[in-house]
Amino acid sequence: MNESIKKVAVIGTGVIGNGWIARFLSQGYEVTAFDPAAGAEERTRLAVNHAWPSLEERGLAANASKDRLFFKDDLAEAVSGADYIQENVPEREELKKSVLHTIDQHARMDALIGSSTSGIKPSILQSDMIHPERFFVAHPFNPVYLLPLVEVVGGEQTNKKALEQAGRFFSSIDMKPLTIHKEIDGHVADRLMEALWREALHLVNDGIATTEEVDKAIIYGAGLRWAQMGPFLTFHLAGGEQGMRHMLEQFGPALKLPWTKLKAPELTEELKERVISGCEEYAGDQSVSDLEAKRNEFLVKLLALVEEYWPEESQAKANI
Amino acid sequence: MNESIKKVAVIGTGVIGNGWIARFLSQGYEVTAFDPAAGAEERTRLAVNHAWPSLEERGLAANASKDRLFFKDDLAEAVSGADYIQENVPEREELKKSVLHTIDQHARMDALIGSSTSGIKPSILQSDMIHPERFFVAHPFNPVYLLPLVEVVGGEQTNKKALEQAGRFFSSIDMKPLTIHKEIDGHVADRLMEALWREALHLVNDGIATTEEVDKAIIYGAGLRWAQMGPFLTFHLAGGEQGMRHMLEQFGPALKLPWTKLKAPELTEELKERVISGCEEYAGDQSVSDLEAKRNEFLVKLLALVEEYWPEESQAKANI
Repeated sequence: MNESIKKVAVIGTGVIGNGWIARFLSQGYEVTAFDPAAGAEERTRLAVNHAWPSLEERGLAANASKDRLFFKDDLAEAVSGADYIQENVPEREELKKSVLHTIDQHARMDALIGSSTSGIKPSILQSDMIHPERFFVAHPFNPVYLLPLVEVVGGEQTNKKALEQAGRFFSSIDMKPLTIHKEIDGHVADRLMEALWREALHLVNDGIATTEEVDKAIIYGAGLRWAQMGPFLTFHLAGGEQGMRHMLEQFGPALKLPWTKLKAPELTEELKERVISGCEEYAGDQSVSDLEAKRNEFLVKLLALVEEYWPEESQAKANI
Repeated sequence: MNESIKKVAVIGTGVIGNGWIARFLSQGYEVTAFDPAAGAEERTRLAVNHAWPSLEERGLAANASKDRLFFKDDLAEAVSGADYIQENVPEREELKKSVLHTIDQHARMDALIGSSTSGIKPSILQSDMIHPERFFVAHPFNPVYLLPLVEVVGGEQTNKKALEQAGRFFSSIDMKPLTIHKEIDGHVADRLMEALWREALHLVNDGIATTEEVDKAIIYGAGLRWAQMGPFLTFHLAGGEQGMRHMLEQFGPALKLPWTKLKAPELTEELKERVISGCEEYAGDQSVSDLEAKRNEFLVKLLALVEEYWPEESQAKANI
């Protein structure tokens, strides 16, 4: 394996691919990119421009430059010189397998390959590769250039050293890699989000709450806490001095209650429209770009705050 | 109904009751309290002392004083002079109904009565009351003295004006009241948290992730965003310029996938111990009090940050 990653290739430049590009550039990497869609390069350069002020505030690496991005007309050419390749094509199994097959053929033998797939298991994606040992899932979260989490998941054929190297690489670019020990549909973070999301859709579908009310029910309660502590440690604190032990005694029985729906709702046209219009009305005259700019300013400050207060900082054993 | 709330009674002084007391005192109210447990007053005064520095930083009301708390030996005496009564006894339906029945008999006719119940429907709790029209659920979130969310839920017999008055009262004490339009087990926020919590328990139970890993999967991803935007607006932004519309096209199909477990796991002794020891090990040598102090410092700063950036500030139509 190639321990010294200097050049990065990003294949597929939608919202996620562009987020990776902005992060890699800000960390001083040279990036080659490929996306067959018309106007892809223009959209990417615009996205990098939008992300840049937040990245400057977080702190740029010595060699960081927006000019070190090179779009290629050919997938093989884009990956041939790269030490690390990040695949972000649409979430369709056959498409991803086909693109990864091509990447595998043209990448250097010692290059690492990560996929941004949010749900497909790595063993499936690597099944047609000639060199599957250097492939893994590297699942990031939007906005990729600011949010630190990346789930790293190896498949049956993945070399353990490739996962370790990936972990070191992601740590070096200001991320928090979470290595998932068993493959599972949806990995970990999206399963958690999906559970909440399904219940949120039910509440909206049943007319219990609007999308805005659901959002407020999260923001002003759990959301404020989960930015610093996750659900487990939050409940640990809610249990008083006895912590989680008391919490489970008190609220364990609630697991038997019908407090959540057990099946996702049918995504009918009516429900889709209700969800879409709920968000659009709530956003008001603020475009997604407006909201993003505000979110970015907020996240930069919040990240500094979390870094200052997150309890792991005072723990020697913290390993993420 | 009594539009001018000056005196407040808090019945049941566990973690939640004490949180209410600290908030009411910091907002300049005189508080009478009742709890039959030995040592209750001492524990409450200690809890108020712990909360006070954060409340000072948030800003105390003109008349705010820790000395305006008066414990009573008798439930009837505690509630007889109050304009607003908050019930926080343990989450057992018969116990709550019995206590509320006594409160109802001894409270002034125009006093409002709220219950902190996290899951029981108000129609059930008010069913034995002589004056049920002034009763509602007022479900807060831990720590009650800092987190702004309070779910306000009326039952079949609740007067609409009582709910409106409650909303104004909670807004006046630095809270974000969310009036839920239909009664449902677990209200709204806890249903959302419970869905994520159940999936988290499955992941731990199945050996996919530890409690610490689950927490990190939330903190460094969704948690950082949900403190400012809830799940809906977050996904709206993840969809790019087309927002939620694109998001549902792209990830709607995932609702059909087995990305969450559809039933809560059996809370076996083994699972309980795994969850408890996971939290305790993670907390390391930091006691719950240590973690609370750190959390409070963090929350004070985070709340200021959210208030600065939350998009509703720029919307005229925002109504929470």
